[in-house]
Amino acid sequence: MAVANLPVVAVRIALAQINPVVGDLAGNAAMITTIVNDLAQRNAADLVVFPELALTGYPPEDLLLRPAFLDDVHAAINSLAQNLALPSVVGAPLRAAQWNVAFQPSSDSRDRSPLGADFFSPVLNAAVICGQGEVLGVATKRFLPNYDVFDEARYFYRGEGPATVVTIAGQRCSVVICEDVWIADGPAHEAAQASDVVVVVNASPFARGRRGERHAVVSHHARHTQTPFLYLNQLGGQDELIFDGASFVADATGAIVHEMPSAQVAVHVVTVENATVSVDHPSSPVTDELGEIYDLLTLATHDYVTKSGFHSVVIALSGGIDSAIVATIAADALGPQNVTTIAMPSRYSSEHSLSDAYELARRQHIACHTAGIEAGHQAIAGTVGDALGHEIAGLTDENLQSRVRGVILMAWSNETGSLVLTTGNKSELAVGYSTLYGDTAGAFAVIKDVPKTLVYELCRWRNQRDGVEVIPLNILEKAPSAELRPDQRDDQSLPPYEILDPLIERYVDFDQPVAQIVAAGFDEEVVRRITRLIDLAEYKRRQSPLGPRISGKSFGKDRRLPLTNRFRG
Amino acid sequence: MAVANLPVVAVRIALAQINPVVGDLAGNAAMITTIVNDLAQRNAADLVVFPELALTGYPPEDLLLRPAFLDDVHAAINSLAQNLALPSVVGAPLRAAQWNVAFQPSSDSRDRSPLGADFFSPVLNAAVICGQGEVLGVATKRFLPNYDVFDEARYFYRGEGPATVVTIAGQRCSVVICEDVWIADGPAHEAAQASDVVVVVNASPFARGRRGERHAVVSHHARHTQTPFLYLNQLGGQDELIFDGASFVADATGAIVHEMPSAQVAVHVVTVENATVSVDHPSSPVTDELGEIYDLLTLATHDYVTKSGFHSVVIALSGGIDSAIVATIAADALGPQNVTTIAMPSRYSSEHSLSDAYELARRQHIACHTAGIEAGHQAIAGTVGDALGHEIAGLTDENLQSRVRGVILMAWSNETGSLVLTTGNKSELAVGYSTLYGDTAGAFAVIKDVPKTLVYELCRWRNQRDGVEVIPLNILEKAPSAELRPDQRDDQSLPPYEILDPLIERYVDFDQPVAQIVAAGFDEEVVRRITRLIDLAEYKRRQSPLGPRISGKSFGKDRRLPLTNRFRG
Repeated sequence: MAVANLPVVAVRIALAQINPVVGDLAGNAAMITTIVNDLAQRNAADLVVFPELALTGYPPEDLLLRPAFLDDVHAAINSLAQNLALPSVVGAPLRAAQWNVAFQPSSDSRDRSPLGADFFSPVLNAAVICGQGEVLGVATKRFLPNYDVFDEARYFYRGEGPATVVTIAGQRCSVVICEDVWIADGPAHEAAQASDVVVVVNASPFARGRRGERHAVVSHHARHTQTPFLYLNQLGGQDELIFDGASFVADATGAIVHEMPSAQVAVHVVTVENATVSVDHPSSPVTDELGEIYDLLTLATHDYVTKSGFHSVVIALSGGIDSAIVATIAADALGPQNVTTIAMPSRYSSEHSLSDAYELARRQHIACHTAGIEAGHQAIAGTVGDALGHEIAGLTDENLQSRVRGVILMAWSNETGSLVLTTGNKSELAVGYSTLYGDTAGAFAVIKDVPKTLVYELCRWRNQRDGVEVIPLNILEKAPSAELRPDQRDDQSLPPYEILDPLIERYVDFDQPVAQIVAAGFDEEVVRRITRLIDLAEYKRRQSPLGPRISGKSFGKDRRLPLTNRFRG
Repeated sequence: MAVANLPVVAVRIALAQINPVVGDLAGNAAMITTIVNDLAQRNAADLVVFPELALTGYPPEDLLLRPAFLDDVHAAINSLAQNLALPSVVGAPLRAAQWNVAFQPSSDSRDRSPLGADFFSPVLNAAVICGQGEVLGVATKRFLPNYDVFDEARYFYRGEGPATVVTIAGQRCSVVICEDVWIADGPAHEAAQASDVVVVVNASPFARGRRGERHAVVSHHARHTQTPFLYLNQLGGQDELIFDGASFVADATGAIVHEMPSAQVAVHVVTVENATVSVDHPSSPVTDELGEIYDLLTLATHDYVTKSGFHSVVIALSGGIDSAIVATIAADALGPQNVTTIAMPSRYSSEHSLSDAYELARRQHIACHTAGIEAGHQAIAGTVGDALGHEIAGLTDENLQSRVRGVILMAWSNETGSLVLTTGNKSELAVGYSTLYGDTAGAFAVIKDVPKTLVYELCRWRNQRDGVEVIPLNILEKAPSAELRPDQRDDQSLPPYEILDPLIERYVDFDQPVAQIVAAGFDEEVVRRITRLIDLAEYKRRQSPLGPRISGKSFGKDRRLPLTNRFRG
């Protein structure tokens, strides 16, 4: 706290909420350099902070096992130390031996086999405080998340204390990395006790409800140590993870006094003056959860496509609600001129499906082509029927239709260089209501973590956003159907989505036992049937494309079940 | 060592090299009970040992996060303690709180958040020594592998010493779990110092060369402590992992005096009498590496198919060497009557391809159907061409042919309930010489970790095994071709496999930088082109089926690269 008669000292700390690309060391270093040198030229900051592993992007996964990658990181960080015109906190993986940092023994045999290890160089998750030709300090991460989507014990050794503190403009600034702030009486507490302001650098992926937890834990430390905390998060889509940004500042009372935007790049400068904080931008708290999810899915789609070196996408438009929201998100992410849709009617498609699809494309200025599947369906059904000695029917024939669509879509993709976006939602993916190599064929599954009921909400939200009905009401109002046999409707094989979605959430997201779900009021027969479907569909999910995670448990690397698995329950 | 004038004490320890099914608690418990009670009835053993996590099968992955699973394990182990007629070592995951075992603090925030944890119950990788109505002891794993294919820090807390020792038939027997034997001067050393014989329970997956390391590390401990070590390994295929068994005994001088078979279930009884060991079966050391790989691929295929509840497979037979070895392995694994092959000629297929395919099927008594792709190819090419406004050609057309084959094969699978085995080898998978949803479509990729040069060796080995040329010589001798355009040959787009395979091994298996590979004598242009192909094909591999791992690094969960990744080098 400020004490009377002390000289006023103030440090201006820029929080750079950037969107790096994993593995693009040159590009990320250039982005970092531009931001720092612009702030320096405007004399707008004394210290610039970048997120956890900003130089490599997070998470670099097994790139961390490649010596060439670590060599290049080492060269890049040394070059940044020379070229940055202000002291800056730059997250990067460091070989302990090259930086002379302390670490704790590993908890496996990699470096302690009686046979002697191969050449082995421990790596730490670090943040280098450097610039103006010097290295002022190196902060290292002491607790390593190895749960949910995280595998840090695979890559890193644990760092050791004491806290890393540098004095900038007369203020003691400490640096703490991500997981370390989640430990009671741990590194963040120590750092606060040794400094005037704590900077926490993070790569914290979005999940619904996560932001409240971030606020609570940081507020706790700030309040208990009477020290301001600056929490900086990465932005952007990286494979299945969405980093929402939404960095924030807690003052010395623990109040969240400033929030940076979600889903947008931003650089805000926080002035810390005798334990009081002020910021050069207005606060941007998120007030609309649906809007945030929509924007984050848009960001994730944009980033997956463009960071992979593509600029356009192609989508199968069925006239249903799932492909409608995916096409709309894609148009918002990439511009309607970069979205192509293909309507692929079958002998079972209703006329309104086609007209609804065309109307959606028309309203959003998206190209829509038509490629009926009848010829392909008939030809292959004939070939297979001849070889089998009988005509195919039922599920085999339904899957065949879906796969002919997949083949057409992939041919379009091959010929035009557009990535295929798939349109399956989380409810379908959960129960296996999809065809492997059919509607699951594609590069990115935009709504794979969005339950069907939320798909409806997002459509309505988007229609209300600008007061323009970009998704025709017809599409929202008709009964969902795969249209793979006459008069098919989803509710013939599944319970209503208002029951299915919460049931899936309990079994998948919360790992609740069947008995507990039944005790909560669900019909036992339905619970047994649906949980069995969920278990049996694991093989389809394993070969499905990745897509952005918005829940606490998606069908991604946060859920790792064996395929060969006889457990039911 | 035996000392004169001491009374002779001997303990008979049965090593049960079993093949459990992950998640099948009832089935695995029944298997364990049958073995123990049979040995008891014959008065053939004093202690029976099962592998690491024998009750659940290894690895149970995220089943370990489900309370219902842990509840069922707890009930099953208590029931085994009652029902087993001899003291037995049964591996199982245990909740520390239910068994009152000590553990070390975690290295992340799961149980130490300032916000308070959710209900959280630490689980340990344990082996319970139980039977005849009592629990004699609980051994816990103290070092947790979290590298390569292992994720144990995701699931388990680290146990604590001292060593777990039980006295059976007058001999002190200690129990050590897997990773703990790989630590110099660690738990295995301590256990040996406190006992007359050390039992090491393992789930150690096969990789070429791994057995020599197991022998070396166990021999080291035995020699340095002058104590016999019994090393028991799990058997069987579990998704991408192959547990080879090959359990063994080191005597008190460190000599490997007994080896149990690779790739086979076995129960051998080891008698330990004043530090000398003898066994009731002859030793079965592996003398033929090719034969072992062939047998392990056969075991993996058998186990994937049957443990998933299937009994038959269908394979696209091209007349080439890859589909030839896969069909042969499948016939050996499941019986030729459970293997169906389909020849799917295109306009570019040569006549010898078809006749070679038929001849292979004939020699092995495998069914072979013919389903030409011309009709499907033409129909879909027409549909896509019409929608695009131009005819498709080149790579788009090549991929389309492969995908029509995939659709036919999957329709056959849907209609007959046979799993599709894919036929791509490691060399193809590495450079992306495959079509996603085409030749990669299927449930299990039998040779995905077998480089092309090794495919040839395995074919020759199989032809020599019984002195019968089950794979026609023609197939081995012709130049490899995908036959997707006129006169296509692999070596038009790839270097010879004798160069490609070692190049892939250096880049993928050993993570060597490009510069190092060039320095080893490879042409720089070739290295740059091939490593770029390897990087770019990551998205195909991510959606490809799993297959058995035989190398130190397969394209499985031992290699986790981001898809969005701009690093090259």
